[in-house]
Amino acid sequence: MARLVMKFGGTSVADIDRIRNVAHHVKREVDAGHEVAVVVSAMSGKTNELVGWCKAAAPLHDAREYDAVVASGEQVTSGLLAITLEGIGVNARSWQGWQLPILTSNAHGSARILDVNGTELIKRFKERKEVAVVSGFQGIHKDTGRITTLGRGGSDTSAVAVAAAIHADRCDIYTDVDGVYTTDPRVVPRARRLDKIAFEEMLELASLGAKVLQVRSVELGMVHKVRIFVRSSFDKPEDIDPHGNPPGTLICDEEDIVEQQVVTGIAFSKDEAQISVRHVPDKPGVAAAIFGPLADASINVDMIVQNVSADNATTDLTFTVPAADYQRSVGVLNKAKGTIGFDHLDGSTDVAKVSVIGIGMRSHAGVAAQAFAALAKRNINIRAITTSEIKFSVLIDAEYTELAVRTLHSLYGLDK
Amino acid sequence: MARLVMKFGGTSVADIDRIRNVAHHVKREVDAGHEVAVVVSAMSGKTNELVGWCKAAAPLHDAREYDAVVASGEQVTSGLLAITLEGIGVNARSWQGWQLPILTSNAHGSARILDVNGTELIKRFKERKEVAVVSGFQGIHKDTGRITTLGRGGSDTSAVAVAAAIHADRCDIYTDVDGVYTTDPRVVPRARRLDKIAFEEMLELASLGAKVLQVRSVELGMVHKVRIFVRSSFDKPEDIDPHGNPPGTLICDEEDIVEQQVVTGIAFSKDEAQISVRHVPDKPGVAAAIFGPLADASINVDMIVQNVSADNATTDLTFTVPAADYQRSVGVLNKAKGTIGFDHLDGSTDVAKVSVIGIGMRSHAGVAAQAFAALAKRNINIRAITTSEIKFSVLIDAEYTELAVRTLHSLYGLDK
Repeated sequence: MARLVMKFGGTSVADIDRIRNVAHHVKREVDAGHEVAVVVSAMSGKTNELVGWCKAAAPLHDAREYDAVVASGEQVTSGLLAITLEGIGVNARSWQGWQLPILTSNAHGSARILDVNGTELIKRFKERKEVAVVSGFQGIHKDTGRITTLGRGGSDTSAVAVAAAIHADRCDIYTDVDGVYTTDPRVVPRARRLDKIAFEEMLELASLGAKVLQVRSVELGMVHKVRIFVRSSFDKPEDIDPHGNPPGTLICDEEDIVEQQVVTGIAFSKDEAQISVRHVPDKPGVAAAIFGPLADASINVDMIVQNVSADNATTDLTFTVPAADYQRSVGVLNKAKGTIGFDHLDGSTDVAKVSVIGIGMRSHAGVAAQAFAALAKRNINIRAITTSEIKFSVLIDAEYTELAVRTLHSLYGLDK
Repeated sequence: MARLVMKFGGTSVADIDRIRNVAHHVKREVDAGHEVAVVVSAMSGKTNELVGWCKAAAPLHDAREYDAVVASGEQVTSGLLAITLEGIGVNARSWQGWQLPILTSNAHGSARILDVNGTELIKRFKERKEVAVVSGFQGIHKDTGRITTLGRGGSDTSAVAVAAAIHADRCDIYTDVDGVYTTDPRVVPRARRLDKIAFEEMLELASLGAKVLQVRSVELGMVHKVRIFVRSSFDKPEDIDPHGNPPGTLICDEEDIVEQQVVTGIAFSKDEAQISVRHVPDKPGVAAAIFGPLADASINVDMIVQNVSADNATTDLTFTVPAADYQRSVGVLNKAKGTIGFDHLDGSTDVAKVSVIGIGMRSHAGVAAQAFAALAKRNINIRAITTSEIKFSVLIDAEYTELAVRTLHSLYGLDK
C-alpha cells in the first residue's frame, strides 16, 4: 500500500468523458489498495474564458477579484470528479483551497503556497477510505481569507505541495505527453523519453522553456523530496511494460539515478531578444547604469556578455531580454543614454537561446567546447554564451534553432 | 442617505455588457450617497450548464458536490461585477457565501439560510465606502463547512437575508420584468402593474406560480419586515416619473398600503392534475388511508374536495397533485386499493387552477360567489374549489384557463 497524489491537467478533464477516464485511473489505484489524493485543473478552455471576462470587465483589474473569478474553474472540476468517482463506487469528496486550507502568500495571481494542512485528508484515508479531490491552482491568503491563485501551471505546484503535506510516496502528474523528453520531439523526432531526471536538471529544463511542469513545483519537489512521476492520461494497455509499469519520467534525487548521462537534455527558446550597447565607457559603474533602469522597469535581463575592450576606453555590452520587452527596453536605455554614455544601440528579436543541461557536466570538462566546435562546423554563429554548473546556453540566429538543437542532440548521444 | 440591497438575476448579468449596465445602476445609488450591498446570480445559462455536467457525471449525484459545482456560477459573477465597479471608480469587493459567512441548514440543493453576518459589511460601508458584491444562491453549512445552495431563485432569498442582516432600508430586486402584475400580461394584455402589494398577497401569488420571486424570499421579507422593490434592470430614462421614481412594485406591510383593493391579483397554473377516488366508504380514517400513502411517496396534494355522500355509505373524493406526479399517484392509490376500498379512480391532467388573491377578502363577503356566477355565465364548469383567508382557487378544464383569467380580471376591476 502506498500513498499517492494524482494530478490531472486541463486537457485530461476537458469534458465529462475525460473526467470519467480520470475517475478510472483513480479507481485503479484505489483498487490496488492505495490512499489517493487527486489534484485537478480547470476543464481546458475554462480558465481562458474566465480570464477573458476579467479583461473585458476592466483592463486593469483587481488581482483579488481576478483570483475569485478564475479559481471557480477548478472548483467545478473537483466537484464533477467527486461525483463521477462516487458514481463508480469510489468514496470521494472535493476540497477547495480554502477548505483544506492551502495557505498562500498574498501575491494574488502568482501566490506562493506557504502551508497545506493534510491532517484531515490522512484521517479520512484511514477512517473512510475516502479519496480527496483537491482543486489545484488555488489557495487562501492566510490573513485576509481571500482566494488566491498560483499562476499558470499552478496545479502542478498544488499537487506537489499536497504530496508533501500528506507525506505521499509519489506525486503522479498525468498530462497530455507521456514524460519528459531529451528535447522537443516536434523538433527532433529522435528525441527520447527519459526514464529518470534529477530535480536540478528538471528545474533548468522547466526554467528554460520546457512546458511539462511549472518551475515552482519542481523546486518544491526538490526541497520536500517528493518523487514526481510525469505520465500520460491517455496511455493504452499496450503501453504498459511487462512489470506493469506505464511509460513516464520520474523526477527524483540525483542519487536515485544510477547511470547518469553527462548531458540529459536540450532546451531552446525563441522568446528572446538581443540588445547590444555599443561603445560604453569601460569603467566601474557602467553595468549598474545600464541594468538599474531595466530592473526598475521590471524587465528580466538574462544572458549578459561584456567584451574586453580593445582600446581600453570603451567596450560593447550585449544581453538578452524577453522578446515581448524588446521595444520597451530600447526605450528605457535611450532615456538613460546621458547617464550611461553609449554611442548607439543595436539588437534583434530574431535570435534563439539553445541550452544544454546535465548534472554530469559538474565532473566532465570540455562539454561546452564540444558544442562550440560542432556548431562552428555547421556555420552557426554564436552571439553570446552563458554557463552555470549544470548547463550552458548559446544565443544564435533564430533560423538556425532546429539545426543547432539537432546537432547538439546527436553530439551528446541523446538520439534514440 | 439610505442603505440598500440591489439584487440582479441571471438575465441582468448575462454577459460583460449587461454586467456593465448593472455597475452603472450601482454607481447611481452610490453617487446618491447610499450604502450598497449587491447580490448577484450566475450569468444566465451558466447554472444550467453546470447542472447538466453534474447530471452527465452521474445520474444520482451527491448533493454536496452538486452544490460545490453550481455555486461557482455566482462566484464568477460577483468577481466580475467587483472588477467592473472598480473599473468605473466605485470601491467594491466580492463576498462568497463562506466568506461573510451566510450560514445555512445542511439541506444541500435547497438549504435554508439560518444566519447572515453583516458586521463586516457595515464596517466597510463606514470606513471605506465599499460596495459589497455578494454571491447569491449559496451559503455554507454551519457545522461541516461545505458549500450549500438554496434552490432555484435562491438569490432572491440571499438578497432579502442580506438586507435583514445589514438592516437595509430597502431590497431592490432588478429583474427582466418591471414589477408584479395583477396577472400574467401575456394572457391578459390589460394586466396592470401593481404599485404596492402586501407580503401575504405576494406570498400567495409566488406560491401559486407567479415566477417573479422565490417564495422563501417573500416569507423572509415578511418576517424581518424588509421592504422589497421589484423593478427592471433595463428601464430607460423615459420610464422614470417626474419625481425620479422608476416603475416597479413595492412589497410591503399591509399597513403601508393606503388604498387596499379587495382583489389584488389573479394567478393560474396548468401544472395540475385531478384525481377522483370513486365510491369510497364514508367512514372515519378513509382520508388517512388515501393521503397517507401519497405523503409517503412525497407527492404534494393540493386541493381536496370531499362530496357529501348521497347514500350515507360511500362518497367521492377529489384532489389535485402536480401533473408530473399524476401517473405515480395513480400507481400508489391502486396499490393501496385494498386498504382504501374504493370502486375506481378517474382523473385528468387537462385541468388548471385559477386563484384570486386579495387581503380585502378578509373583510368583504361574497367575493368568491361573484366569481362562481361570472364563470357559470361563461359556461365554465368548476371541478373543485378551495378557499383560504385571503384567496380562493377554482379547478377548471385547462382549455378555459385564459377565458377564466380574463373574466375574473375584469370582474374585480383589475383591467387598466
